[in-house]
Amino acid sequence: MTLDESCLESEQTYSGYLLKVFRDKVVLPDGAIATREYVRHGGACVIIAEVRPGVLIFERQFRYPVGQVFLELPAGKIDAGDTLLGCAQRELREETGYSAADWQHLGVMHPCIGYSSEKIDIFLARNLTPGEQELDAGEFLEVFELSLEDAEDAVFDGRITDAKTIACLFWARRFLRR
Amino acid sequence: MTLDESCLESEQTYSGYLLKVFRDKVVLPDGAIATREYVRHGGACVIIAEVRPGVLIFERQFRYPVGQVFLELPAGKIDAGDTLLGCAQRELREETGYSAADWQHLGVMHPCIGYSSEKIDIFLARNLTPGEQELDAGEFLEVFELSLEDAEDAVFDGRITDAKTIACLFWARRFLRR
Repeated sequence: MTLDESCLESEQTYSGYLLKVFRDKVVLPDGAIATREYVRHGGACVIIAEVRPGVLIFERQFRYPVGQVFLELPAGKIDAGDTLLGCAQRELREETGYSAADWQHLGVMHPCIGYSSEKIDIFLARNLTPGEQELDAGEFLEVFELSLEDAEDAVFDGRITDAKTIACLFWARRFLRR
Repeated sequence: MTLDESCLESEQTYSGYLLKVFRDKVVLPDGAIATREYVRHGGACVIIAEVRPGVLIFERQFRYPVGQVFLELPAGKIDAGDTLLGCAQRELREETGYSAADWQHLGVMHPCIGYSSEKIDIFLARNLTPGEQELDAGEFLEVFELSLEDAEDAVFDGRITDAKTIACLFWARRFLRR
């Protein structure tokens, strides 16, 4: 059985300040026609930044769509013209002040496959040098350190609920403890 | 320093077939005014269903927004009037045919904190009994089994990239191996 759906027609139905919504007419595996509505997203990077053995750089940031402060790893959207690594390096530096001498691309995740095309590339950054934050206008966040073990505990007691951060901790356990 | 942003005005700027987009005027921590645009979502449940010791029920499903087949855990949106547990039980039964005698709520995750209010409640289902799938019209998926170890390998070799599934494997490692 093939599971694939193919596009018959694509229409942009909303062009917002941040979000671009498309509504496509698609052919289902059984030949029926259906509608799929989703956000087209340019992608993002997230950074597992190891500042000392087993200790990661975290951020505390208010996320308006959910209405609460989140503990999360540094991350940011890919800008036009960015390379993936360039995006990761810029976001780490701007949000936390840190530069890293060693960069490794670990893998990718898709945060929201039901209604967004977003892909997040996961980077491991090591050999860090501190510097000055350069936050965008309207960006407010606090930087702090958390050991991998404390971060894992924070998932299980509900203090960390951001899915991209939990997925990165899954990757971190493999790459930081050996 | 407070990080909180407060709502000054909220406007629904798009009401689609699936997606509801809001654009709010908010007050930032420094008193400045900014715009936040996001999807309001009614929430979802995901189910870690252990069919035999260390073996989980997975699905193979084409996800149109990303344009590829994903290996993912059973999950579904909360309908009006659903309890969380009722949603999890229905989605497991409809998508995979399985009913479970033992249910445990493990925690929550937020898949897309940058532009969606979505919260996903994580359930562990054990003591399973097979039955008939009842897929919705236009829903096509294949059910299969994967050991926790094979699923973990599938994350590291790139076959599993769905963030909710990776986050659940993080939880599963804690609750299934002890």
